Amino acid sequence: MSVINVGVIGASGYTGLELLKILIHHPKFNLSYVANTEGGTTLVSLHPSLAKVCDLDVKKADVEECATSCALVFLALPHQSAMAYVKPLIAKGIKVVDLSADYRLPQDIYEKFYCPHTDAQNLAKAVYGLPELFRKELKSASLVANPGCFPTSAILGVLPFMEKRVKNTPIIIDAKTGVSGAGKKLSETTHFVNVNENLFAYNPLMHRHAPEIAQKLGVDFEEVHFVPHLVPITRGMLSSIYIQVEGDFDAHELLEAYYKDAKHVRVSKNPVDMKNVAGTNFCDIYVKQSKASLEKGNILFISSAIDNLMRGASSAAVVNANLMMGLDEDLGIPNIAYVP
Amino acid sequence: MSVINVGVIGASGYTGLELLKILIHHPKFNLSYVANTEGGTTLVSLHPSLAKVCDLDVKKADVEECATSCALVFLALPHQSAMAYVKPLIAKGIKVVDLSADYRLPQDIYEKFYCPHTDAQNLAKAVYGLPELFRKELKSASLVANPGCFPTSAILGVLPFMEKRVKNTPIIIDAKTGVSGAGKKLSETTHFVNVNENLFAYNPLMHRHAPEIAQKLGVDFEEVHFVPHLVPITRGMLSSIYIQVEGDFDAHELLEAYYKDAKHVRVSKNPVDMKNVAGTNFCDIYVKQSKASLEKGNILFISSAIDNLMRGASSAAVVNANLMMGLDEDLGIPNIAYVP
Amino acid sequence: MSVINVGVIGASGYTGLELLKILIHHPKFNLSYVANTEGGTTLVSLHPSLAKVCDLDVKKADVEECATSCALVFLALPHQSAMAYVKPLIAKGIKVVDLSADYRLPQDIYEKFYCPHTDAQNLAKAVYGLPELFRKELKSASLVANPGCFPTSAILGVLPFMEKRVKNTPIIIDAKTGVSGAGKKLSETTHFVNVNENLFAYNPLMHRHAPEIAQKLGVDFEEVHFVPHLVPITRGMLSSIYIQVEGDFDAHELLEAYYKDAKHVRVSKNPVDMKNVAGTNFCDIYVKQSKASLEKGNILFISSAIDNLMRGASSAAVVNANLMMGLDEDLGIPNIAYVP
Amino acid sequence: MSVINVGVIGASGYTGLELLKILIHHPKFNLSYVANTEGGTTLVSLHPSLAKVCDLDVKKADVEECATSCALVFLALPHQSAMAYVKPLIAKGIKVVDLSADYRLPQDIYEKFYCPHTDAQNLAKAVYGLPELFRKELKSASLVANPGCFPTSAILGVLPFMEKRVKNTPIIIDAKTGVSGAGKKLSETTHFVNVNENLFAYNPLMHRHAPEIAQKLGVDFEEVHFVPHLVPITRGMLSSIYIQVEGDFDAHELLEAYYKDAKHVRVSKNPVDMKNVAGTNFCDIYVKQSKASLEKGNILFISSAIDNLMRGASSAAVVNANLMMGLDEDLGIPNIAYVP
Repeated sequence: MSVINVGVIGASGYTGLELLKILIHHPKFNLSYVANTEGGTTLVSLHPSLAKVCDLDVKKADVEECATSCALVFLALPHQSAMAYVKPLIAKGIKVVDLSADYRLPQDIYEKFYCPHTDAQNLAKAVYGLPELFRKELKSASLVANPGCFPTSAILGVLPFMEKRVKNTPIIIDAKTGVSGAGKKLSETTHFVNVNENLFAYNPLMHRHAPEIAQKLGVDFEEVHFVPHLVPITRGMLSSIYIQVEGDFDAHELLEAYYKDAKHVRVSKNPVDMKNVAGTNFCDIYVKQSKASLEKGNILFISSAIDNLMRGASSAAVVNANLMMGLDEDLGIPNIAYVP
Repeated sequence: MSVINVGVIGASGYTGLELLKILIHHPKFNLSYVANTEGGTTLVSLHPSLAKVCDLDVKKADVEECATSCALVFLALPHQSAMAYVKPLIAKGIKVVDLSADYRLPQDIYEKFYCPHTDAQNLAKAVYGLPELFRKELKSASLVANPGCFPTSAILGVLPFMEKRVKNTPIIIDAKTGVSGAGKKLSETTHFVNVNENLFAYNPLMHRHAPEIAQKLGVDFEEVHFVPHLVPITRGMLSSIYIQVEGDFDAHELLEAYYKDAKHVRVSKNPVDMKNVAGTNFCDIYVKQSKASLEKGNILFISSAIDNLMRGASSAAVVNANLMMGLDEDLGIPNIAYVP
Repeated sequence: MSVINVGVIGASGYTGLELLKILIHHPKFNLSYVANTEGGTTLVSLHPSLAKVCDLDVKKADVEECATSCALVFLALPHQSAMAYVKPLIAKGIKVVDLSADYRLPQDIYEKFYCPHTDAQNLAKAVYGLPELFRKELKSASLVANPGCFPTSAILGVLPFMEKRVKNTPIIIDAKTGVSGAGKKLSETTHFVNVNENLFAYNPLMHRHAPEIAQKLGVDFEEVHFVPHLVPITRGMLSSIYIQVEGDFDAHELLEAYYKDAKHVRVSKNPVDMKNVAGTNFCDIYVKQSKASLEKGNILFISSAIDNLMRGASSAAVVNANLMMGLDEDLGIPNIAYVP
Repeated sequence: MSVINVGVIGASGYTGLELLKILIHHPKFNLSYVANTEGGTTLVSLHPSLAKVCDLDVKKADVEECATSCALVFLALPHQSAMAYVKPLIAKGIKVVDLSADYRLPQDIYEKFYCPHTDAQNLAKAVYGLPELFRKELKSASLVANPGCFPTSAILGVLPFMEKRVKNTPIIIDAKTGVSGAGKKLSETTHFVNVNENLFAYNPLMHRHAPEIAQKLGVDFEEVHFVPHLVPITRGMLSSIYIQVEGDFDAHELLEAYYKDAKHVRVSKNPVDMKNVAGTNFCDIYVKQSKASLEKGNILFISSAIDNLMRGASSAAVVNANLMMGLDEDLGIPNIAYVP
């Protein structure tokens, strides 16, 4: 099979860089178009670590030029900016993996938490890019909405236990994320001195990823209690999830059975950590049952670890592109962690 | 008033050092006896940072010698070792603040989670050293059981809301602690490479501080779901607490009212962090109400931050000693944080 | 003796905060005036860690108001801004400790590395605030130029060996500094992701502290080769110094003898580290002689550690104020390190 | 060309893991034998990050078994242990890349700094595995002594300037290394609390890598003044080098010319950092000339960055194996850095 030309629009940020790092060595995808909103530079100027590795030009993003040189495009742009590119690209028959939030939610929910949506037509057809939920649909998708990092780690942790869960009880997600999740932008929150030797919750019970989690799990938004915490780590995400379940079952066995064929989920008998998944597309999951016997059922503690920039964004996007293009799901997907 | 001679047994570890750091500059306590289990050394040999500050001899711990030179002794020893000193010291009329777990729990619970107890008599009389719960009792105590670090941060966060809490619902405590909590001992868990750029839960739903929390809150052990996480930080502890409450009330106002006279609790309108309390005896607390309306009541998210070695151990111990000796609660207690 | 009213202009930054943290508990200085360039706020708003500790108003800096309420003022302002306050304050008879670079260098050198100087008169009378060099002069000074952090650590390391040094050979200073030295300003260099797990030299052989070092050591600027490195640490500074010496002597003994009466220098037999000085005014120094016998003499490796915000700025400033006011040099000066 | 069977003895440590991570995806090398000194385990048990990636058995190291299954073996063992395997493996015609110090130095120097050598015959024939010095010899080598991490970064930095260097002047190497260089062993030095927010020199002017540097540069041991510092980083190494040079030349241009064909050295116009090389075999080098004009010539500041586990050990070892087996030098060698 010949190579497939792909492009990246939004090459400057962290997720853009991660896409490039994967695509440079992908055995089937050929990086034929790289752009950001300014253009007029090179990959090595933007990302000095690519010196002697890849020095493509970075162009000013242009739908026409992109469409003539690619069969599929990754958009690593902020929400609202992304939809302005998706619409014309899809119209020209280019497949798109959008890493923003623009196509993840039904219009009413999207507009409640983000901004007005200007591409309802494609929104209705977009497939949510979590293979563990929509593998079949992804294979024939033209437009994939790549999931948020928090939703990925949370959904993969909760999903296997949805049938055991006691209806109408809280799903509590206490998430911890590395600072790269906040992006390259300078802010008080990313100043080294404010983060180092520190730890705090932010947007508690108010983060925009909560409706995404609820919607994909098929529960009411008010049942998901989501609190992210910023930790002094560059990359990594750990979601500590607490749910109430009923019935007599072995949670670890259920988890293992649920993911026995999953290429990018690993079930662990020991509490999972951030390090073993850093740099990879793996989601590592651990579960522990409490011995409590409350009225409303037992508590499960689920710990779910991903690399926020990889499984939480860029390697997940390439998995989706693989599926969309009829390739093996794990072709060219990094599986060697940044340990030690 | 003249000075009060005090001693420290267990001068080698982190909590021992923190005690010394406070006592060296305490306006009323005079550090007249310093010991560890080996003796034959000096403070500066154990803790080079004390050079040109304080170079007392460190003696081999001896009850007789200690009793003749001190009115009050701090024990910074592992559990089980501590009780062997408490019994004879109390017998000689010396007041004791014990930083171990030995006198924190009723005998049956203690023996279930730790080891056989050999000093039931004093155990029955020991006062749990949380002034926010037992200030009055502490003023006349001879033996104080200094609280664990996790229980301190958790109890202070939950306490104000116990009346609003829906009975028989889970109290979920997702705690994050710095590595100094694991002590000086060499272990896989404290190896820099294993902790740095990493984060994981340990002893999930099984940590020995859970029964301490339950017992002091007056709830059943099975209602407390406690999961500590190790974070790549030297000192600091943040407990993220989720409870179900009922009734119409303003959680922030209730919290402010509850702690309006507390010298060492600060209520914050913004999420609290580890840095603002590091090096001090403050516990900073934030609360956020969810808008959910579940069958079993609303969810409160409570975030409670302390310095694990200070409010979680050594400065709390000196507060207790102040109370036991009739001094002002905050005399000589550090209140200047290690920011930035 | 009654209290002495002092003020701080420049309360917002890291060195301003450190000044406040020391002055709040100083036994003789009374913090009677706190200002920044905007005013209209409070200390707790600027620095939440001061809640329940000190909540003075922060005023808009005004020379008149300042002069009526203080006998001495600390200026924690950027260079160039500082001299605009020094001139009128000195004219009104107020003593000043200036933490900027404005009064550290002779006019010609200052103007070469910084900007035009508008207060030559006071510049000529300012005393360089390193007690180890100018203790006597400081006692009668009206205006003290507080030394830069790099110069402090470098000069204190080199000074004892100047007589042994081979003339005209390079003085190599390889310095490592924590990120707080770069201040609160947002920049690429202070973004957590750029600093964490990273290390690099900046302004190599071109930093403005090099002429300060050369001038105070009395050597030619071209003999000082100074390269600072940024390290992923919040506070701390370590200077690794290499000089060529001649003659037969014991470097450690010479160092000990030189600083035997110094209250804030500690000579160590083991390599020094950042942690034992963090939070204090100590400078810890270690020296090691090579066994080499080059034509031009042996090499000495000198390692000099300070807290960049304390001995490198704010606690040094309070030491200078103590001397200017006839107080004991170490009155109210923090000597308990942030270990562990 | 068919695959080449290779083995790893010493699979437990950090350099062993890094070897495995590279070899698992190497296009020509087939990992046919993995062992450590105990055996009886699996790769996933030793390194959980390899779950769902590679789960070979880990055998008890045995020369016979190894020799029958491999054409080339990597030894990732401590010095002294390594030579016991090298001798019989070489005798059986197996090629060996030894990552220990055992074959790096002439016997007299080795025995002075390490221990008695028991394999003088092979020592005499071993090739030092730095392609920039010995590419030609490596192509026909049976036994390669893989360089130490500090020597790699130092030699690559100094080498281009040896002809410009003023004879008999000091070569000063102030190196900074991440903690993974200290290995998995538990020690005070690797305890998180001792390293985090800290920085110190160790073995100043006495480290065993100094003679290796001197010997390979062809200078007298007494001319190399080497001081390593431990920094709170997991992986990375930066050597700051100061040498005296004479003559009129452009140091950056000379550096670029020297390495213009080097596949794994990158010359930078800006100071280099650890992050851009982490996870790769690149050595990034920057040079800056001082404007000084001392008697003995000008000073060059050279900054040389590598990943201590990769270019400083394991990826360098695979490069050497590539050369020994007639493959392209960069075949299967990681070049995508762990940024951000």
